[in-house]
Amino acid sequence: MSLLEKVNTPADIKGFSTQELETLCSEVRSYMIECCACNPGHLGASLGAVELCIALHHVFDTPKDKVVFDVGHQAYAHKIITGRREAFKNNRKYKGISGFPKISESPYDSFGTGHSSTSISSALGLAVAAQMRHSGEKVVAVIGDGALTGGMAFEALNNAGSMKTDILVILNDNHISIDQSTGALHNHLLKISTSHTYNSVKTRVWNRLSGADRLRSGLQTFVSSTKNALLQGASLFESLGFRYFGTVDGNNIGQMVETLTKLKDINGPKLLHIVTTKGKGYKPAEDEQTIWHAPGTFDPKTGKRNVKTSDIARYQDVFGETLLQLARQNPAIVGISPAMLSGCGMNILAKEMPERVFDVGIAESHAVTFTAGLAAGGMIPVCNIYSSFMQRAYDNIIHDIALQNLKTVICLDRAGIVGEDGATHHGCFDMASLRPIPNLTIAAPLNELELKNMLYSATLPHYPTTVIRYPRGNGEGVAWRDEQWREIPVGKGQLLHEGEGIAILSIGAIGNRASEAVARAEKDGIQVLHYDMRFLKPIDMEILERVCTKADTIITIEDGALYGGLHSAVSEYITARGLGNKLVSMGIPDRFIEQGSIAQLHQECGYDSETIYRTIMENYRR
Amino acid sequence: MSLLEKVNTPADIKGFSTQELETLCSEVRSYMIECCACNPGHLGASLGAVELCIALHHVFDTPKDKVVFDVGHQAYAHKIITGRREAFKNNRKYKGISGFPKISESPYDSFGTGHSSTSISSALGLAVAAQMRHSGEKVVAVIGDGALTGGMAFEALNNAGSMKTDILVILNDNHISIDQSTGALHNHLLKISTSHTYNSVKTRVWNRLSGADRLRSGLQTFVSSTKNALLQGASLFESLGFRYFGTVDGNNIGQMVETLTKLKDINGPKLLHIVTTKGKGYKPAEDEQTIWHAPGTFDPKTGKRNVKTSDIARYQDVFGETLLQLARQNPAIVGISPAMLSGCGMNILAKEMPERVFDVGIAESHAVTFTAGLAAGGMIPVCNIYSSFMQRAYDNIIHDIALQNLKTVICLDRAGIVGEDGATHHGCFDMASLRPIPNLTIAAPLNELELKNMLYSATLPHYPTTVIRYPRGNGEGVAWRDEQWREIPVGKGQLLHEGEGIAILSIGAIGNRASEAVARAEKDGIQVLHYDMRFLKPIDMEILERVCTKADTIITIEDGALYGGLHSAVSEYITARGLGNKLVSMGIPDRFIEQGSIAQLHQECGYDSETIYRTIMENYRR
Repeated sequence: MSLLEKVNTPADIKGFSTQELETLCSEVRSYMIECCACNPGHLGASLGAVELCIALHHVFDTPKDKVVFDVGHQAYAHKIITGRREAFKNNRKYKGISGFPKISESPYDSFGTGHSSTSISSALGLAVAAQMRHSGEKVVAVIGDGALTGGMAFEALNNAGSMKTDILVILNDNHISIDQSTGALHNHLLKISTSHTYNSVKTRVWNRLSGADRLRSGLQTFVSSTKNALLQGASLFESLGFRYFGTVDGNNIGQMVETLTKLKDINGPKLLHIVTTKGKGYKPAEDEQTIWHAPGTFDPKTGKRNVKTSDIARYQDVFGETLLQLARQNPAIVGISPAMLSGCGMNILAKEMPERVFDVGIAESHAVTFTAGLAAGGMIPVCNIYSSFMQRAYDNIIHDIALQNLKTVICLDRAGIVGEDGATHHGCFDMASLRPIPNLTIAAPLNELELKNMLYSATLPHYPTTVIRYPRGNGEGVAWRDEQWREIPVGKGQLLHEGEGIAILSIGAIGNRASEAVARAEKDGIQVLHYDMRFLKPIDMEILERVCTKADTIITIEDGALYGGLHSAVSEYITARGLGNKLVSMGIPDRFIEQGSIAQLHQECGYDSETIYRTIMENYRR
Repeated sequence: MSLLEKVNTPADIKGFSTQELETLCSEVRSYMIECCACNPGHLGASLGAVELCIALHHVFDTPKDKVVFDVGHQAYAHKIITGRREAFKNNRKYKGISGFPKISESPYDSFGTGHSSTSISSALGLAVAAQMRHSGEKVVAVIGDGALTGGMAFEALNNAGSMKTDILVILNDNHISIDQSTGALHNHLLKISTSHTYNSVKTRVWNRLSGADRLRSGLQTFVSSTKNALLQGASLFESLGFRYFGTVDGNNIGQMVETLTKLKDINGPKLLHIVTTKGKGYKPAEDEQTIWHAPGTFDPKTGKRNVKTSDIARYQDVFGETLLQLARQNPAIVGISPAMLSGCGMNILAKEMPERVFDVGIAESHAVTFTAGLAAGGMIPVCNIYSSFMQRAYDNIIHDIALQNLKTVICLDRAGIVGEDGATHHGCFDMASLRPIPNLTIAAPLNELELKNMLYSATLPHYPTTVIRYPRGNGEGVAWRDEQWREIPVGKGQLLHEGEGIAILSIGAIGNRASEAVARAEKDGIQVLHYDMRFLKPIDMEILERVCTKADTIITIEDGALYGGLHSAVSEYITARGLGNKLVSMGIPDRFIEQGSIAQLHQECGYDSETIYRTIMENYRR
């Protein structure tokens, strides 16, 4: 029987020796690789944080003490030793456990996550609550160097650093987010970690009531760093009121346990800077860190990845290749991405013209306002953000782009249901939240070719500022690469199927599922009038007029929240005229949708091809 | 003839001597005081930045060179000397000039603003564009110490600091935002500025191609600072890749001109730290900086403010006093504000129980996630954010509060049309953007008493997480202070007037304007069925059922964007049932609304009492 099999809760590892902990780390790592080899997950970050997770549970009294993970990609070892070893086999699966920490899943998950840079804020809230309730709980936030570039991490450091609340922030520095980390902070951290040697934590417990000066002098004996290292490293975090400790080898369980044990009893805001290796302990993952961030399935022995070869392009490839072609033709076109270069396909442009691409770090707000500044300076900037991360730049789209009517192109990849990443990552709210904003044109392509032409159209000088939202994953397999550019008229939808009595208005690629249902209905003798609206805004009034005349019942279908999007727009048209058409609305319902395959979740939400077909039949018969 | 009268554009001050510039500053200051005395504005910040604005236009070649102001409260001198001296008399007035820089208003306004912390991002965009176009333009961002706590300022520093792009960031440090500045950064800046003496800028121009080490050694000779000052001050910004210069007395025009002239020709990212006095040159404003941030009208000679005495409470007073009462009764209740303590009325609680209030700085994202953390820790946090600033915490409301269903109370002050602050500050999008989010209850009180009871209800343990949105300014004058607490049932509206044939569904305080119109219609013999919906979500289905039965035409009225809010919710109800009722929708139309009085803007948007009355009459007659 392995050590891991005996570990059901953190209580089981309290008495472990350093050697036993090392063995456990090794076993957890193997188990994680074995599970992820057949059930894909975010392996790289979690491999690097095995010692960190185990040391935290060994030293702290969880779940009374709270550990808050940032993003959550690194928390697999945490999940495995907190009662979810078996459940981890269904990690990220439909009805399985979430790939991220989640309050409702376990008392050991102190705070849910998925988006970046939230951990210090929520941990500070937990810490202040603990202080006010005199509960004696310790609170730890674990944040990566990538997530630290997100502005709200800085907001939280600035706030926490001026309070006396006990909080330990662990900066898990592996020099990479998904793509290579960028930004000045990254350079700065790299300089510290390469210049520092391991600074052993002295046994002396700090004077808890020390004033600023005694604190400072105390720091210098506590951490045996050179003056130069202090100047380079400590001062950034010390400027923000944190006591800085580091760097420590975060993949050395002995050092981690020793350090955390010492830090546990030091009051006030503290930052421990550890250095880890993403993919640690699995050579293929250490060697190619970006690919092994989320490698898909693979052979655990050889590290050979099961790369699906498909003739069908992913939307991100269509975006990336199209952007490159457009940029070749127009020197004013530049690309902006908040740390998702390869995820959104902009790496294709970056490879050929690195000077035309700006990876601004995990910083969505800045990305959008920087984009607006580029537009004000005469460029044609194309900013690509995942739909759910766009929520972090909502004000920037309103205040900096739309209000000033600055001509930009905003592409929202991963719009609609995204699958295994689950509730935090579905792009549900983009259409509903952007529709009320003046000066925005909002479009969603039906397929690869439409995406290509929409992106082309949106970069034309006379075209308005356009948001293009499209789903995660593969396109429909239509020809697109060698097709001629074609401008898509603003606000014009397209007829997909002629019919009457009943109509479908769809927007985006989900329209292809509707077409399948329409084809089945046709075999049953029912001719459904089906339009691809293409544009949520401005909405095609001619189509609405025709549809309302020809069909009593209209089915709206959108891969987005039901309230506020296409369904609402069509409703508003009908009631403004008192027409009396009945609407059947299909879209993401008013509850959060968990993880699963995209097909499973479309079915759960009730707008898979089969459900659309049944809805046609039920409503036609009436 | 004064010097100021001769200054129509910055070209007119190019040849000015230091003495002439000093005279001009004095005249601009007097003119500003004179104008603001009868036409209220943001006086304090602009008084402090007179020398800064004039020095920038003296030294830089505007509008070719770009100056981007953050927030924009400090830019009055800039407006006055860039062709808007006379127009300034109509500052913030309906059809007058905006209180903020605005691209469409002047070529000297390089980038619009109103919200905080955006200047470095947009300036970086302008600077990169200038670099790519080889235009030789210089770009300057002016940001206050308060705005620097906003996370996106840090995101932008982090991004800019790793690039070679020429950009000058001027940190205008007056140690105050609107209320006293908070946070670790503030303490840090205070420490620098009190320890530094004025560091004269040496004449030697830096080696533009200097490597990192030569840069560092160059810095030490360039700025004559002690090692200690370097350790404390420069390192924060230097950690982020900026060359730090400072501190300089920003109210000394001679020093400012000399410093800017030297800095102009230094390449790369640079930060100049200047210290100014908010309210400078006008004793009352220097003495009471928070009050004189936006003092209203006053006697310029005596500094006596024309404080309106009104028996009618402002909504912010109702919020503040109610929160205090609730906090006295329940120790779990705490208040959170992103730097708007006095603006939202939370200063009332802070005065009696400072330990129960958290002013987190200008940091809306952090404020909301910190609030979520407090809730996860067992507190009942009440977070108050202005509606338009909530847009900066949109993802935090989704990802950290709603998704985890953490019981919190979110109060949105300044919802709907806010008046003179104009397009950047109207709270248009809260209802539309929040309605699609699961697990949120969204309410808007009809008057002071309803606000009191909604806030009471929302803090009850069994009540769901509730967003309460209410307008800027005075309530309706109803009795509220001594009324008994009354729980408002979730999702239940109230009948305000019985009638049939035509109906009004209103939400929030705008319902009172509807009541006035209904009363007028009654005199004309028309009985309008009028409900105050109270809740946008969950919406009161019983009311909708009754109204759709009793009235063919339904008028929806909301002080918010037409698309996505109440209008959409009622539309969806009607079309889901194919009822055929006609909707007339009144709300903020699909364009950005500029500044003016609230009454003027309600009229412009078409939902003032008179327009509502006419709409009733027109639709009833049909």
